[in-house]
Amino acid sequence: MNEGRTGIWFVGARGSVATTAAIGLAALVEGRIRPVGLTTAAPDFDDVALPAFADLVVGGHDVDETPLLERARRLAAGGMIAPATVEAVAARLDAIDGEIRLVPREARGSQRREIGLRADDIRSFRERHGLRRVVVIDVASTEPLPADRPEFHDRAALDAALDEAGRDLLPSSTLSALAALEAGSPYACFTPSISLGIPALQDAAAEAGVPIAGQDGKTGETLLRTVLAPMFASRGMRVLSWAGANLLGGGDGATLADPAAVQSKLASKNRGLHDLLGHDVVTPLHIDNVPDLGDVKTAWDHVHAEGFLDTRITLQTTWTAYDSTLAAPLVIDLARLLSLAEEAGLVGPVPELGYFFKDPWGSDVHAFARQADELVSWALRTAVRRNATQAA
Amino acid sequence: MNEGRTGIWFVGARGSVATTAAIGLAALVEGRIRPVGLTTAAPDFDDVALPAFADLVVGGHDVDETPLLERARRLAAGGMIAPATVEAVAARLDAIDGEIRLVPREARGSQRREIGLRADDIRSFRERHGLRRVVVIDVASTEPLPADRPEFHDRAALDAALDEAGRDLLPSSTLSALAALEAGSPYACFTPSISLGIPALQDAAAEAGVPIAGQDGKTGETLLRTVLAPMFASRGMRVLSWAGANLLGGGDGATLADPAAVQSKLASKNRGLHDLLGHDVVTPLHIDNVPDLGDVKTAWDHVHAEGFLDTRITLQTTWTAYDSTLAAPLVIDLARLLSLAEEAGLVGPVPELGYFFKDPWGSDVHAFARQADELVSWALRTAVRRNATQAA
Amino acid sequence: MNEGRTGIWFVGARGSVATTAAIGLAALVEGRIRPVGLTTAAPDFDDVALPAFADLVVGGHDVDETPLLERARRLAAGGMIAPATVEAVAARLDAIDGEIRLVPREARGSQRREIGLRADDIRSFRERHGLRRVVVIDVASTEPLPADRPEFHDRAALDAALDEAGRDLLPSSTLSALAALEAGSPYACFTPSISLGIPALQDAAAEAGVPIAGQDGKTGETLLRTVLAPMFASRGMRVLSWAGANLLGGGDGATLADPAAVQSKLASKNRGLHDLLGHDVVTPLHIDNVPDLGDVKTAWDHVHAEGFLDTRITLQTTWTAYDSTLAAPLVIDLARLLSLAEEAGLVGPVPELGYFFKDPWGSDVHAFARQADELVSWALRTAVRRNATQAA
Amino acid sequence: MNEGRTGIWFVGARGSVATTAAIGLAALVEGRIRPVGLTTAAPDFDDVALPAFADLVVGGHDVDETPLLERARRLAAGGMIAPATVEAVAARLDAIDGEIRLVPREARGSQRREIGLRADDIRSFRERHGLRRVVVIDVASTEPLPADRPEFHDRAALDAALDEAGRDLLPSSTLSALAALEAGSPYACFTPSISLGIPALQDAAAEAGVPIAGQDGKTGETLLRTVLAPMFASRGMRVLSWAGANLLGGGDGATLADPAAVQSKLASKNRGLHDLLGHDVVTPLHIDNVPDLGDVKTAWDHVHAEGFLDTRITLQTTWTAYDSTLAAPLVIDLARLLSLAEEAGLVGPVPELGYFFKDPWGSDVHAFARQADELVSWALRTAVRRNATQAA
Ligand SMILES: NC(=O)c1ccc[n+]([C@@H]2O[C@H](COP(=O)([O-])OP(=O)(O)OC[C@H]3O[C@@H](n4cnc5c(N)ncnc54)[C@H](O)[C@@H]3O)[C@@H](O)[C@H]2O)c1
Ligand SMILES: NC(=O)c1ccc[n+]([C@@H]2O[C@H](COP(=O)([O-])OP(=O)(O)OC[C@H]3O[C@@H](n4cnc5c(N)ncnc54)[C@H](O)[C@@H]3O)[C@@H](O)[C@H]2O)c1
Ligand SMILES: NC(=O)c1ccc[n+]([C@@H]2O[C@H](COP(=O)([O-])OP(=O)(O)OC[C@H]3O[C@@H](n4cnc5c(N)ncnc54)[C@H](O)[C@@H]3O)[C@@H](O)[C@H]2O)c1
Ligand SMILES: NC(=O)c1ccc[n+]([C@@H]2O[C@H](COP(=O)([O-])OP(=O)(O)OC[C@H]3O[C@@H](n4cnc5c(N)ncnc54)[C@H](O)[C@@H]3O)[C@@H](O)[C@H]2O)c1
Ligand code: NA
Ligand code: NA
Repeated sequence: MNEGRTGIWFVGARGSVATTAAIGLAALVEGRIRPVGLTTAAPDFDDVALPAFADLVVGGHDVDETPLLERARRLAAGGMIAPATVEAVAARLDAIDGEIRLVPREARGSQRREIGLRADDIRSFRERHGLRRVVVIDVASTEPLPADRPEFHDRAALDAALDEAGRDLLPSSTLSALAALEAGSPYACFTPSISLGIPALQDAAAEAGVPIAGQDGKTGETLLRTVLAPMFASRGMRVLSWAGANLLGGGDGATLADPAAVQSKLASKNRGLHDLLGHDVVTPLHIDNVPDLGDVKTAWDHVHAEGFLDTRITLQTTWTAYDSTLAAPLVIDLARLLSLAEEAGLVGPVPELGYFFKDPWGSDVHAFARQADELVSWALRTAVRRNATQAA
Repeated sequence: MNEGRTGIWFVGARGSVATTAAIGLAALVEGRIRPVGLTTAAPDFDDVALPAFADLVVGGHDVDETPLLERARRLAAGGMIAPATVEAVAARLDAIDGEIRLVPREARGSQRREIGLRADDIRSFRERHGLRRVVVIDVASTEPLPADRPEFHDRAALDAALDEAGRDLLPSSTLSALAALEAGSPYACFTPSISLGIPALQDAAAEAGVPIAGQDGKTGETLLRTVLAPMFASRGMRVLSWAGANLLGGGDGATLADPAAVQSKLASKNRGLHDLLGHDVVTPLHIDNVPDLGDVKTAWDHVHAEGFLDTRITLQTTWTAYDSTLAAPLVIDLARLLSLAEEAGLVGPVPELGYFFKDPWGSDVHAFARQADELVSWALRTAVRRNATQAA
Repeated sequence: MNEGRTGIWFVGARGSVATTAAIGLAALVEGRIRPVGLTTAAPDFDDVALPAFADLVVGGHDVDETPLLERARRLAAGGMIAPATVEAVAARLDAIDGEIRLVPREARGSQRREIGLRADDIRSFRERHGLRRVVVIDVASTEPLPADRPEFHDRAALDAALDEAGRDLLPSSTLSALAALEAGSPYACFTPSISLGIPALQDAAAEAGVPIAGQDGKTGETLLRTVLAPMFASRGMRVLSWAGANLLGGGDGATLADPAAVQSKLASKNRGLHDLLGHDVVTPLHIDNVPDLGDVKTAWDHVHAEGFLDTRITLQTTWTAYDSTLAAPLVIDLARLLSLAEEAGLVGPVPELGYFFKDPWGSDVHAFARQADELVSWALRTAVRRNATQAA
Repeated sequence: MNEGRTGIWFVGARGSVATTAAIGLAALVEGRIRPVGLTTAAPDFDDVALPAFADLVVGGHDVDETPLLERARRLAAGGMIAPATVEAVAARLDAIDGEIRLVPREARGSQRREIGLRADDIRSFRERHGLRRVVVIDVASTEPLPADRPEFHDRAALDAALDEAGRDLLPSSTLSALAALEAGSPYACFTPSISLGIPALQDAAAEAGVPIAGQDGKTGETLLRTVLAPMFASRGMRVLSWAGANLLGGGDGATLADPAAVQSKLASKNRGLHDLLGHDVVTPLHIDNVPDLGDVKTAWDHVHAEGFLDTRITLQTTWTAYDSTLAAPLVIDLARLLSLAEEAGLVGPVPELGYFFKDPWGSDVHAFARQADELVSWALRTAVRRNATQAA
């Protein structure tokens, strides 16, 4: 798939996840690091044609103007990344910085116009670099879930509202997603924000003829839960409660300190668990903003299950990691796999990409091992289909 | 599969696992407990004809003479099982007690004769109860691994040695396994003892025309490891070390306090990890006998993995459970599934039963989710084959 | 101190803590258990004259009518206490049951009258059994903290309001405390409810001439925190955050599931930490009701401190225990030590009994080791003083 | 105490602890870090005259020749210290490097001669820098404990053996300690090596007229244990077992991977626990070398105690820290406090410095809070005595 380069357009391009992805891609291209943490670097994908790291070009939107290099240095100062690595790729980061466009917090005119302006940014990025395609990935701050509106269930009403100047119907995540569709870009939603989850927009991606994937990256505690829950189920143990405590600082910690924003996250985190265990389970869950922990996230889970002869089984897990270095390789994987999907002519939600998400679009499968199997066989199948498509 | 009843012959019939299985079976038959903790009670197995709980009859061998009811009461006193449950099934336990035969610690005459006497016990149990078959399951104390001998690699030499009175070549686990084969019984080895792992005996089960399964029940920490390790692998994270500490009291704790006995256990526990992670991983592992913990086992694991951009990921797990109530349902599952295997005419190691073991015979698959999938499809396949066999 | 017996009057006499204390006292008297978990049973107190276990007589108030024996059996069914222990002391529990008086949820007439009726119950208990004194201990359900009122700061206004029939000024915990004072009883508040914490009542105990102690029993997580925090302080490590998650079922779990009730608890739990660490520390804390855990409480704490050269130190603790068996021996200790205090003629808050509480009345000392030292020397000092008083 | 500067002579001056202390001292002097992690920087010590950080001059012995700056850079590369901090103090580290003398692994001539040569190094360091005194602190690799010898119990025989060329009686830690005494230097043993623990040398320090302190720095898991154990004791809970697992890499990890070396460490770690709990406790303990963890040490402890009514209490702790940054401030504290001790004319073991050690010389007090109290009052007392001494 080396006929041409592929763009990654990050919504939230100056955030921790996007910055880490940018540093990591640069470090991979320069050979400073090995492709650890990437799913698509495994031998399973050896025969699947995916864009090379060196063929990925990064740009994006943000509401913030802090230079990318400064964001990167802050991550290094916090201990996440070796300062030497950041300095070694400083020039590349500066170049990406030049590809980041500011989006205002208020729509410019009508929301239709705002969508159009965002789509223009994406299209001009594609043209400026002669890219084969641009994959748009939302890694912006988690939004509060909007209250339901009649227009969310009626496409015509929604379309009409978009044209009203000053009418503030859709949240920013949806505007960005619609901009991606308008620009003909594959799109992935890595956040729990509503994005294309508005009922009236259910078929928007298919109509736009682009593949999409979502939602809310599955990186730490939730990953672990969807790995562990099937074990209890297979062995016939009855999980009675699964409690969780998350401690994190950094930008995401500050955002999630807002009770409105945290709701979408909590809902997204618990959904898979209920599906996997298939009965009523008590699942208290908290996310606390602990600024001194910086980018290191610690999640403690306590599982109580009933075993044979009514005996008590408990499992505690403590997971500690830099959250953004868990997420960054996944967004790179997504860019590569959505490229493949588009090459193969797929449109609408790609269920098998649910592997990457807490709340998979187009799929009810949460069990991680099953998702992993399905992802690999999807990739092989799609690679075959893509070759057929290209040959035709 | 209700044409006739099936026997379970426990080697180590007065031990914690066997006693717990006996209590549990009785409580299931009396409807005092639900079939929690059993894999074969899941809907996946609804269409697979397996012996009903009420059609399982228990007997066995042991070197100890403590009445089964007393063993059961001790388990209840330790908090594992409600005393009321034990009292409610006391009569059934007394009946089983009458079906337990003493094996001496020294062979009676030649080891060939000892095998024969053990086989006689099994055969006479079958006849006494008019059983369709007797599945032999070794849940005796873990033995030290024997030093290698030339006879272990030469069937003829081994056969000759068996005839020499006073010659002490094979450990007890092997004698019991050979007794099972001689009696035409399906056999499962739930311990890490050498049993049929002697090279010269590799084909003994196939020759005897019985299905077998092994080895060393996968119940707690190792189960967890084979669930978690594939997650790291799929996500491209490089596990660098996986350290473990096991604290347990009870009979197994006392046995494993012996450095010779613990070796076979430790080897068995780490094998899957190395296979699953596919590269050099540091895996310090300890088992400590902590008598005051009684039958509750606590295992702490500390996993250190390298993620994207050389960042540190750590996962700690603490698993706490009554070890014997984890194991007991598995031996019931094994008895049911080996019945099925025999009905379908399978002989030799059944690789798909590796799901139950730390060190699967006939299989290299350790990843738990994969094993679970394979077990279910094997059961369905085998049920079909069995129906065909029976019809023919 | 064996001239006469001492009464313990539990407010909340049918709750888990009171029931456990009653079972435990009975089992101690019958010699079924050793005095484990009691501070006053240590050799340090050998020379301090305290009421013998056999000289303690139990009665109390509750709003609930479930027979005490039934409550005890439920605790046994939940695994906390051996059923045989409960049955062995059944007659004693039935006798205590006859000493429990119902208090209505609404005051009978004016609150002054309600206080009087409660005091009558205490006095008649004392007379009925010819007790030397009755120590009142509040172990009732945690109340929501009442909104502030002008009368809370003005004794005359408060007194006047108490006489108004139907005027609902004071919460039940305060009524019970005032009843104790009216009856001339030493009083301890084991809950975080407001009780005598109303400013206008600050000197009520001293005026009534009785010793009191409070507040909110320090049994698990908070105990641990006041043990650990001084270590960080002494070694000059800067604690930056101390996060906590509490999981519990049982009656207390259900009460604390109410966000209003939980506030008083959370405030009480964090107070000592801030005092001990002496600077701004981030202390997110949650209590979740997890009914399936029953009476077992699990608390996870995560401490992040800064060490030499700005390095990160983390400590995680997981504490698991039956909450009521932690609390029950402390209320027995309190009854014994408040007896001593009264014998020695002490009135008002006894600061050294802060050892038993999250939020010590009359003291700012939270460091557990310091409290332990002070308790022991107070007991010796008070025993001397009491002997002098008695001799005089 | 600013009349003159004080030297610190590290035995093991190129090791992690000594290097970290050197970096830290330099960073303190340059005002790059605050005195976090130091006990003597607390307000409690404000009125105690101790050498200022800027008045401490570092030198030492080592068997290794890696330049100190290189050692420091390795620690920075491992994530323990910010690389910028190391570079900022590079010149100071180079200066210290010039003060480190090589000791050979074999004695030069008789062991008496070897002691003399080491003492010469210390004396010449003192003279070269015009130091008021040199405190010698052993932070060399842990040695295996030597087998007992008759000479260890007979001072004359020991003295005679020291004169025999080629006779290898004493381990290196003892030679270094004797060199300190010969040079008239206060001495602290921060390792579990035998050092002055040889019976015949019991009074050597007092005879030499210098104060000494030991042994084996109490920094992580053991610190925690001596903080927690008194809580269980005070509350009358019966600790039944206290199990521990230590994972560490770095130089100390590699040393302790040697089963002979680890014995002295394990003995030292468990001693306090047995003393504090005062009865038979099961205390399995392991130290594993896990190279990938580098300088971060993780210790997991599992405590099982019996509470009221025979109920089970468990506490798990996981402590994670850079081991050397825990130790380094303590050796600085020790240098300051041994200076004070010498100024006040103290000789022989200083029991109150047991605060810093797993295995306190001259004291049986292990309870940390008690040690902290005693240290502070000792420092005040000694400061007064020192002023009197100096005035006289
Ligand atoms: N492991 C993980 O890190 C992980 C896992 C799952 C999901 N996520 C999600 O990824 C997102 C990013 O996480 P992060 O840690 O990088 O957060 P962050 O706060 O560091 O970055 C978010 C960025 O989005 C920008 N932004 C805010 N509103 C915007 C808008 N309307 N348009 C464009 N940009 C906007 C902010 O200025 C900021 O630069 C969050 O929503 C988070 O919940 C992260
Ligand atoms: N979760 C688990 O409990 C688990 C998991 C995997 C494997 N296992 C294995 O199962 C076995 C049984 O565990 P347990 O906890 O019941 O142990 P146990 O000590 O309670 O019972 C072992 C029994 O075997 C008997 N025995 C000893 N030697 C014998 C011999 N030569 N022939 C017949 N009987 C003999 C003993 O008398 C005893 O009754 C152990 O080998 C253990 O390693 C248990
Ligand atoms: N470790 C511990 O168990 C612990 C520690 C600190 C504090 N406490 C406090 O002790 C109290 C009792 O805890 P528990 O677990 O026994 O709770 P519980 O719910 O089992 O018992 C509370 C009892 O109080 C009774 N009650 C409610 N309102 C009353 C009133 N107005 N007057 C008299 N009785 C009333 C209830 O009917 C119930 O029987 C709680 O406030 C709890 O916060 C317990
Ligand atoms: N938290 C802690 O780090 C801690 C706590 C308690 C005790 N200790 C003890 O402190 C000591 C140092 O620990 P470390 O992590 O710095 O170890 P390290 O291995 O990094 O350093 C030890 C140094 O001693 C040197 N050395 C070896 N033999 C010597 C000899 N005979 N004479 C002089 N130097 C010699 C080595 O070359 C090395 O430079 C160890 O004994 C350790 O057990 C450390
Ligand atoms: Na195998
Ligand atoms: Na106070």
